[in-house]
Amino acid sequence: MQKVAVIGAGQTKFGEHWEKSFRDLMAEAGKKAIEDANISGNDIQAVYGGTMSAGRMIGQEHIGALIADSMGLNPIPSTRVENACASGGTAFREAYMAIAGGHYDIVVAGGVEKMTDVFTSQASLALGGAADQEWEVFFGATFPALYALIARRHMHEYGTTEEQMARVAVKNHHNGSLNPNAQYRRDVTLEQVMSSSKVADPLKLLDCSPITDGAAAVVLASEKIARKYCDDPIWVLGSAQASDTLALHDRESLTTLKSSVIAGREAMKQAGVKPTDINIAEVHDCFTIAEICAVEDLGFVEKGKGGKAEEDGMFDLNSNISVNPSGGLKACGHPVGATGIKQVIEAVEQLRGEAGKRQVDGAETALTHNVGGTGATAVVHIFSKEGN
Amino acid sequence: MQKVAVIGAGQTKFGEHWEKSFRDLMAEAGKKAIEDANISGNDIQAVYGGTMSAGRMIGQEHIGALIADSMGLNPIPSTRVENACASGGTAFREAYMAIAGGHYDIVVAGGVEKMTDVFTSQASLALGGAADQEWEVFFGATFPALYALIARRHMHEYGTTEEQMARVAVKNHHNGSLNPNAQYRRDVTLEQVMSSSKVADPLKLLDCSPITDGAAAVVLASEKIARKYCDDPIWVLGSAQASDTLALHDRESLTTLKSSVIAGREAMKQAGVKPTDINIAEVHDCFTIAEICAVEDLGFVEKGKGGKAEEDGMFDLNSNISVNPSGGLKACGHPVGATGIKQVIEAVEQLRGEAGKRQVDGAETALTHNVGGTGATAVVHIFSKEGN
Repeated sequence: MQKVAVIGAGQTKFGEHWEKSFRDLMAEAGKKAIEDANISGNDIQAVYGGTMSAGRMIGQEHIGALIADSMGLNPIPSTRVENACASGGTAFREAYMAIAGGHYDIVVAGGVEKMTDVFTSQASLALGGAADQEWEVFFGATFPALYALIARRHMHEYGTTEEQMARVAVKNHHNGSLNPNAQYRRDVTLEQVMSSSKVADPLKLLDCSPITDGAAAVVLASEKIARKYCDDPIWVLGSAQASDTLALHDRESLTTLKSSVIAGREAMKQAGVKPTDINIAEVHDCFTIAEICAVEDLGFVEKGKGGKAEEDGMFDLNSNISVNPSGGLKACGHPVGATGIKQVIEAVEQLRGEAGKRQVDGAETALTHNVGGTGATAVVHIFSKEGN
Repeated sequence: MQKVAVIGAGQTKFGEHWEKSFRDLMAEAGKKAIEDANISGNDIQAVYGGTMSAGRMIGQEHIGALIADSMGLNPIPSTRVENACASGGTAFREAYMAIAGGHYDIVVAGGVEKMTDVFTSQASLALGGAADQEWEVFFGATFPALYALIARRHMHEYGTTEEQMARVAVKNHHNGSLNPNAQYRRDVTLEQVMSSSKVADPLKLLDCSPITDGAAAVVLASEKIARKYCDDPIWVLGSAQASDTLALHDRESLTTLKSSVIAGREAMKQAGVKPTDINIAEVHDCFTIAEICAVEDLGFVEKGKGGKAEEDGMFDLNSNISVNPSGGLKACGHPVGATGIKQVIEAVEQLRGEAGKRQVDGAETALTHNVGGTGATAVVHIFSKEGN
């Protein structure tokens, strides 16, 4: 296997981009990543693009070709991968695997979603495509409703409180306030979260990640190329992906995302690290309860202790493990296909020491955790300044 | 690189499956492939599934997870890839690359599309997602219209005739009449094709591939596993993919699919074969003109001579190169995501000598050619009974 590094990263601001199209966003992020890597478009040998639901959001499939075309990269292979909300993480993993396996030396992994061009009801229906259409969505379940079931069960089993969930929103909004690319750059108070309108009891508006437009791209390179183009390559030490049942009702447990547990363990094994070695983790907080499950499933705390740990500030910026220093999906927004790549960009910027006001001191090892649906897919990557 | 072989193959009948769902079709094909490979589900390490537009056709995205779940394969990684009508070929290529690169030893590549559960107008709109939504579809272009432009230009530049295109339909319907899995198992005459109703001048109803439900799956394995499980592995000698502009109007030529030329050359180079070494080619005949372009772009005949060669029977069953012995998209039907995998299955059955009444005598080397849209993506694979 070839060693693989990230040598360039770029993203659009996340938010409501009324004046920019899907391809505008994609091209902006791609161009920034290529410039950051200091390569030319001609150096790129393949592209993997993650997008969840461009067919339903903008009427366009064939997104791989659209990316290559819009960015003037023809005739290289360009492929869309889709694993719902984990599409970005999967695109990164496919790019990583292609280089590690010796097929290419420079590959771009990108992610993009344009969600505001359809009515929110349509976007919501499209997002439902990440759950089980026949056994969940058809019967009226929405994503907030499914995660509300997880939250309610977590409260029942472990005594997790609504305030502990709200604390995740407070932390991530604070981090997002320090991130120039975040959709929401403002602090919220515990009281504001607790008094925000109910979406699906016990989840309130400020427990939920929003509808967002955005794109993100990174340039991956083999070791020989990385050292040639780049003074500070960020190495990929581990890459793992796992699946679980599509519908929640088929799971052994509602509160453990088995795919996260398995992908997390496997990625850490590859990287030769333990949960306590991780300094920074970008985890999939589509809802506040999802971050609580994630810190447990990834082994940062014991099962059931996530809510208390959040309450105690254990995952605040520059605490033991800084979780979602970017602001997470909660404050950055969640342009579905772009999220997994944005997580990688945050890891890269933090490890380079270029994360500005939200810089985590002495960050050496970072983890990204991207979930599809309610956990039917999980993709975990581990990054370091030093190759192993 | 590890050598890679196909050790199992299975598909549903292609046609209108009113009584079967997307997941029924998928599971049926997957089960047949696994049984054919004589492995158990526990041996499978990863899945790549090709589907173009499940979001718009059945309201379901997250198809990778759906496949793993429906087939009881959790928690292995399972990923959907989408390159429009080349989604199946791309899924095969990703599976091939993952094994060749040493990441896995046994991977399933599948393809599926369920197209009859929506009105034909909706299916047609969804298929439009393979073309350029902003610059073609929005202005009213449909796929028959786009291929009609190609056909008209081919007629203008090279004197290709409507009868020569019709001859492709006659040949492929004859081959399809010998294929128990084809949607249309009947011969058509030149007169029937010529007098069928106009769809987009000069293309008539019988120049077009139909709307189809179906699924197909193959099991790929590394050399060490292939020899253990299988007496007659079919080796993958070449795998290539290329991209071109999404919209026709951006091309240098309307009659050459540059992506086919590039992917074809690269795959043949990897395999160490020339066009004349190919005995069997499954090419992407979504319209009859597409087969004429393909035999030219793949180098089987000089540019512009495809129509005449079809007229002369050069690509008939058991002629020099048997093109579309399965019946092609034209007679087998075109369940979009499944088509690229079905092409591989035909290559495998022919090389094993298990193709029944449509068996090509002494077949040694086969090529598959899967196109997305009007050629913004092309994926070419080359197979042989003997590894190189």
